[in-house]
Amino acid sequence: MQNFTFHNPTRILFGAGQIGSLRREVPQGARVLLTYGGGSIKANGVYDQVRKALEGFELLEFGGIEPNPTFEHLMKGVELARAEQADFLLAVGGGSVIDGTKFMAAAIPWHGNEWDIVSRHMAPRAALPMGTVLTLPATGSESNCFAVVTRAATQDKIAFSSPLIFPRFSILDPETTYTLSPRQIANGVVDAFVHTVEQYLTYPADAPLQDRFAEAILRTLIEEGPRTLADPTDYAARSNVMWCATMALNGLIGAGVPQDWATHTIGHELTALHGLDHAQTLAIVLPNLLWVQRTDKREKLVQYATRVWDCQDGNEAVRLEKGIIATRTFFEAMGNPTHLNAYAVGEDRFGEIVDRLQARKSLPLGERKDITSEKVLEILALAR
Amino acid sequence: MQNFTFHNPTRILFGAGQIGSLRREVPQGARVLLTYGGGSIKANGVYDQVRKALEGFELLEFGGIEPNPTFEHLMKGVELARAEQADFLLAVGGGSVIDGTKFMAAAIPWHGNEWDIVSRHMAPRAALPMGTVLTLPATGSESNCFAVVTRAATQDKIAFSSPLIFPRFSILDPETTYTLSPRQIANGVVDAFVHTVEQYLTYPADAPLQDRFAEAILRTLIEEGPRTLADPTDYAARSNVMWCATMALNGLIGAGVPQDWATHTIGHELTALHGLDHAQTLAIVLPNLLWVQRTDKREKLVQYATRVWDCQDGNEAVRLEKGIIATRTFFEAMGNPTHLNAYAVGEDRFGEIVDRLQARKSLPLGERKDITSEKVLEILALAR
Repeated sequence: MQNFTFHNPTRILFGAGQIGSLRREVPQGARVLLTYGGGSIKANGVYDQVRKALEGFELLEFGGIEPNPTFEHLMKGVELARAEQADFLLAVGGGSVIDGTKFMAAAIPWHGNEWDIVSRHMAPRAALPMGTVLTLPATGSESNCFAVVTRAATQDKIAFSSPLIFPRFSILDPETTYTLSPRQIANGVVDAFVHTVEQYLTYPADAPLQDRFAEAILRTLIEEGPRTLADPTDYAARSNVMWCATMALNGLIGAGVPQDWATHTIGHELTALHGLDHAQTLAIVLPNLLWVQRTDKREKLVQYATRVWDCQDGNEAVRLEKGIIATRTFFEAMGNPTHLNAYAVGEDRFGEIVDRLQARKSLPLGERKDITSEKVLEILALAR
Repeated sequence: MQNFTFHNPTRILFGAGQIGSLRREVPQGARVLLTYGGGSIKANGVYDQVRKALEGFELLEFGGIEPNPTFEHLMKGVELARAEQADFLLAVGGGSVIDGTKFMAAAIPWHGNEWDIVSRHMAPRAALPMGTVLTLPATGSESNCFAVVTRAATQDKIAFSSPLIFPRFSILDPETTYTLSPRQIANGVVDAFVHTVEQYLTYPADAPLQDRFAEAILRTLIEEGPRTLADPTDYAARSNVMWCATMALNGLIGAGVPQDWATHTIGHELTALHGLDHAQTLAIVLPNLLWVQRTDKREKLVQYATRVWDCQDGNEAVRLEKGIIATRTFFEAMGNPTHLNAYAVGEDRFGEIVDRLQARKSLPLGERKDITSEKVLEILALAR
């Protein structure tokens, strides 16, 4: 096991009815800026529940945060918060709303060019405290210190992190997710699955507990994902998917082990250039990346096939391939095509993706830093 | 899944050499009271490492904290801290040192009878901040808000908790544990194993991720426990046992599921009356409790036998019994006898144990509150 620091101070309040706890969790007397996305929370009643729980608090609002939240729009929220002297941010929504609100939390007290926090990874010295009400299980942003923001002008989609942007609390009420579309649920399950794989499918590191925790999340997603797609109001299934998504990216399974993240990095470019959903890009890239990297990842791929997909028969090469095929089949069954042609992305722009990765100094990628521009092109070619 | 709150703010610094991080973790200018046990940290070099890392800090010392730390001795530390105006506590040792230090942290600013914090579960309104350097993987105390303290005068061994007694940080360097005796390691493995079982072997609660996390810890302990006994300086094996012990009782696997804790409650009386090591009492009580409760726990016992012990053959009753036998065999193989006669505890004092549980209003016990005094006697009779 590698040395590590693990710290996750977010308080999770999980279960039906927990939105009522908001009035205890938000600091007394806070001037709260409520942030949200396209307004689905108004249609599904979550907005009303939140306002009711916070009766008596001073509430401001900033909506319209996009999927893949943009710096340009978020800066309007930053200016609103500064002008109105908000001192607590409450993000109500999915990963994009939460990521965008994390950026705002760091940007509001920032002196200088706020984009530097993202693009130059300059460390904030302060951030507004924030909490979340999660309405879309997927990214794990409700319980980590990461955020991804896109600059619309340049289509730069970049992750940043700071210990100051951990939410103080996150409310996870599975019932708030009943009205999500099948596509949103499928995306969430695939996102959580790939987060887990990025921290697990690398090389053995004498960390059997982390391995088994990762396998626990993967097996549970495989079991509960289709169940929750089939019956959106099955409380148990929705709860389990929600808890898996949080556990997939709260730092736990990645503690002390090598990590990959090449699938995410390549996927971000597909989203930025072609507008694909984040999870769609992961479903496209991952199976092909695993195949291209099958020699590097051989030991863990065999373990994955055996323990997660119960591939017991055949030699290692056979089982390894079965595991990759099972992954692809699972994504497809959840409703996420795994080929670029399903999204009308042609190969004429593969070069542009590599150029952008190079310009950002992101290459080489992977846990061994051996995914070069040639390998990225090979992965994309397989993904046609 | 049941509703739950999960919150664990302790920062974990894991790995060889992490004691050097102390000078960044302890607040600048703090007046530190270093607490420890019988002095093993002086023999194995940990004491010197800690003092070196904290050069320049004002350091006070309070040693001699016993296994099963006593209120009477701890109060001397409380008085020392008050007189010397210590403002940070650093526990260096195992679960007893950490538990004792947690009590001190709450007792130092307490006005009134300090024993009330334990016996009457009165909630502290303040506590001194504390950190730990863990030298014995077992109790999980390094990353939770629980502590067990014994009043020597009455032999009351009682658990209490407060969110204020979470350590701010805990340093887990597996190399500090190389000098532990086989008995200490065996106790630690059994303790972590039984902590996991208390939160897992109850009844199904639609919580497959929590189940699989618990099974992950149990399987890893079964694999790594004998390995670390055989070679105390195998860094990987010792690391894995250490991380399992933390994960077994940091709130994670117990979130949203029913919990038992009857084995611990009965075991505490055996320690208080007969001086057995905590883990020895668990090894004695658990297999017999599982047998007595085999109808209540049937579904989870079968799952446990199948998934943790790979009992695939035979009907449910057969597998269930095999799982219980495997548990007993594992404890014995680790060096923990599972019968009271191995510790010269006779049945003449079984009644006293039940009387004490009744006096403390602890009965009935278990996740269904159906372990009555009769069942406790049945468990003890089987344990002869």
